[in-house]
Amino acid sequence: MATSPETSADGPPDKPDNSAVVNIGLMGFGVVGTGVAAHILGSNFSMADVTGRTVNLKKVLVRDASLTRDVELPAGVLTTNAEDILTDPDIHIVVEVMGGTDPAENYIKQALSSGKHIVTANKEVMAKLGPELMTLARQNNANLLFEASVGGGIPIVGCMMNELAANDIRSIRSIINGTTNYILTKMAHEGTAFKEALGEAQALGYAESDPTNDIEGIDASYKLTILASLAYRRSFQPSEVYCEGISKLEPQDFRYAEELGYAIKSLAIANLEEGAVQLRVYPALVPAEHMLAKVDGVYNAVEVDGSLCGPVLFHGMGAGRAPTTSAIIGDVVEAVRKMGSNSPLLEPHNGTELTVRPIGDLVSRYYVRLEVADHPGVLAQIAQILGDGQISIAAVLQRDTHPETESAEIVITTHPAREQSMQNALKAMTDLPQVKRVSNTLRIEE
Amino acid sequence: MATSPETSADGPPDKPDNSAVVNIGLMGFGVVGTGVAAHILGSNFSMADVTGRTVNLKKVLVRDASLTRDVELPAGVLTTNAEDILTDPDIHIVVEVMGGTDPAENYIKQALSSGKHIVTANKEVMAKLGPELMTLARQNNANLLFEASVGGGIPIVGCMMNELAANDIRSIRSIINGTTNYILTKMAHEGTAFKEALGEAQALGYAESDPTNDIEGIDASYKLTILASLAYRRSFQPSEVYCEGISKLEPQDFRYAEELGYAIKSLAIANLEEGAVQLRVYPALVPAEHMLAKVDGVYNAVEVDGSLCGPVLFHGMGAGRAPTTSAIIGDVVEAVRKMGSNSPLLEPHNGTELTVRPIGDLVSRYYVRLEVADHPGVLAQIAQILGDGQISIAAVLQRDTHPETESAEIVITTHPAREQSMQNALKAMTDLPQVKRVSNTLRIEE
Repeated sequence: MATSPETSADGPPDKPDNSAVVNIGLMGFGVVGTGVAAHILGSNFSMADVTGRTVNLKKVLVRDASLTRDVELPAGVLTTNAEDILTDPDIHIVVEVMGGTDPAENYIKQALSSGKHIVTANKEVMAKLGPELMTLARQNNANLLFEASVGGGIPIVGCMMNELAANDIRSIRSIINGTTNYILTKMAHEGTAFKEALGEAQALGYAESDPTNDIEGIDASYKLTILASLAYRRSFQPSEVYCEGISKLEPQDFRYAEELGYAIKSLAIANLEEGAVQLRVYPALVPAEHMLAKVDGVYNAVEVDGSLCGPVLFHGMGAGRAPTTSAIIGDVVEAVRKMGSNSPLLEPHNGTELTVRPIGDLVSRYYVRLEVADHPGVLAQIAQILGDGQISIAAVLQRDTHPETESAEIVITTHPAREQSMQNALKAMTDLPQVKRVSNTLRIEE
Repeated sequence: MATSPETSADGPPDKPDNSAVVNIGLMGFGVVGTGVAAHILGSNFSMADVTGRTVNLKKVLVRDASLTRDVELPAGVLTTNAEDILTDPDIHIVVEVMGGTDPAENYIKQALSSGKHIVTANKEVMAKLGPELMTLARQNNANLLFEASVGGGIPIVGCMMNELAANDIRSIRSIINGTTNYILTKMAHEGTAFKEALGEAQALGYAESDPTNDIEGIDASYKLTILASLAYRRSFQPSEVYCEGISKLEPQDFRYAEELGYAIKSLAIANLEEGAVQLRVYPALVPAEHMLAKVDGVYNAVEVDGSLCGPVLFHGMGAGRAPTTSAIIGDVVEAVRKMGSNSPLLEPHNGTELTVRPIGDLVSRYYVRLEVADHPGVLAQIAQILGDGQISIAAVLQRDTHPETESAEIVITTHPAREQSMQNALKAMTDLPQVKRVSNTLRIEE
């Protein structure tokens, strides 16, 4: 019987990958962990039906064994010692739902090194260390699965790794932070101010008491890093994602956008052009008739444009206990089905030399809202600055003159221009004595 | 080393499932077959990168070896003898893109019986024999993959089998026939009559010269049968799908629908309620703000409502050489990755007793368009019939009075009612002397 150069078909003797019973070690027993445990233990779902094997929850790691939880575990399953899972040769799959990098990172490395398969929901670990961990997994003929790290119940990670694997990915355009999308939807539909919408999101549990990670785009940059690393098979870091938050948006931006035929959405975008990848998270104007403009509330959506499949859009619930459990159990099923095969998942580095293009090289259309002195000639000066920067104007709106402050609001949209030119022009506008404020600058995604 | 009860971890000796080189036998070399061959042979895509193994196109079955094709094959690959593929123990995966049931069905059975993995685009075979073939695959520890049979480049089949496997599926609502959707989009946006829109679709190659399979919903019923069999793991037959085509639609239906806040889409729906599944394909009114209403042209969309993930919508190109190639190569990647595992795919029968609910038991809202004599009291008589059937009216529109024929057009929408009651009421209306014609009856999907 032929074998691959790397691994014998039998696998290491301490790794019974084709055994009839598959043992799970669960690390973390919070909202998601209890959901996963309940589903594996539950009577409605039979892992044996789906995979042909019995799946057994052997150990659950908790910080405090004395706490009561809403899921009852069989005797002897609970432990406070990670080694009970990591050094048990009979545990085949480790499900990590602790979050954070410490100690999760070390646990994942230790498990992979001993050939255990990992299913994780940990977006921070996967964003910062994904390709390194994927390499470690391949070296140990283990699978590393992380569907739950991006997009909740939307099966985007699995599809990037499996179903869409034949495609060169041209671009990913996504709405992958439900908190932000809830706030923007509220501002758009009800004219709510940012702070008020944020307060409501916090009251409903959609935003944390310190909402920085969500509203400043950090959470989305983690998720985009994960997707881009899969799409372009190069190790990206979250710090390579250009990031703008949503806190500068004001109700009138939504009114102007609507008048111009757009919605405002916080997009996470990765695209490949001429050997360079551009990674960015920012609120942008999206044509009202585009599907991404219809993604409302806490929903997420990801549009992947592949060389063969064309644009494929996924839309669904981006967070919550049940959708995350759906993703994790789906990964467990996949891990079980692939046990025994010595064909591990995606090679994380395909050897192509991709650079990350700086934001200054972006070519985009722009929306600019300015507060100016209500004097003749102001618009001419602004138009002159744009013209000098080779930026041509698409539309101008002038509204909301305030006699008491002698100021007016001007909104300008441009044709495609280079970001650096636009930033230079904005700087020059700010220096004009008649310009009181550049209130907002947004990019327009066609 | 532990082994499963069914199969030894090593597999049968004539099935080198962990070999470093994986050999493909391709059956069918038309538009899709050449696309698949070009992709496997092409230099831009490395199967080794993705799967860790070399994938080799060993044989390609054609009917006529003398025809010239736009893909050049290495010497000795072309054959006109199916046995060259089916009896070659070194061929691991058979890709079947011949279409039709004969001889494809027998080839698939023969290949699975000898433990070869099958990747097929054959919706007819999968709709009529899917669960039987899945059982045969499991018995022989082979994988049977059929992503390309539904939804072109949309990864819906794989997601049903893998990523969403943890979910009980409550419903599937889909637009899975691009020809029909092209025609309906044309009629809606341009007011085109059905025959004219069909002619245009034929001229563009979107509809065949005999368009029956598409416009009467037969193609969609095949695809729905495949999805329902996966979702509910019971053997359904296409004949169990209630089917209505789109040829009765007239331009004014689209005008009335728009006025009422709806789009008209041909939907393929499966849903499970109280232990019974309902399967249906028909043109229906969809709320204009729902994502399915935005699916235009030759695009497809599938919305799966799962017990954990909630509603997940997939949108993309439903047909064509490149999207179909994306689906097939994705399946080949999956088949390669799972080789060596003795955990085959989904058990096709989960043992639950599901019945198919007859269409008469459907509960739905309705849209009815009638041509009536322009006389007083007609509406009262119609309302009486509906009231007698316990069907309550939601809205009434009366337009398009034609003085020359002394007729008027009435459109009625109802609150939810039982289909059988509605059919009885329609029969009673038809019998009224003042009702010249029940022009159209459509269901309203909320």
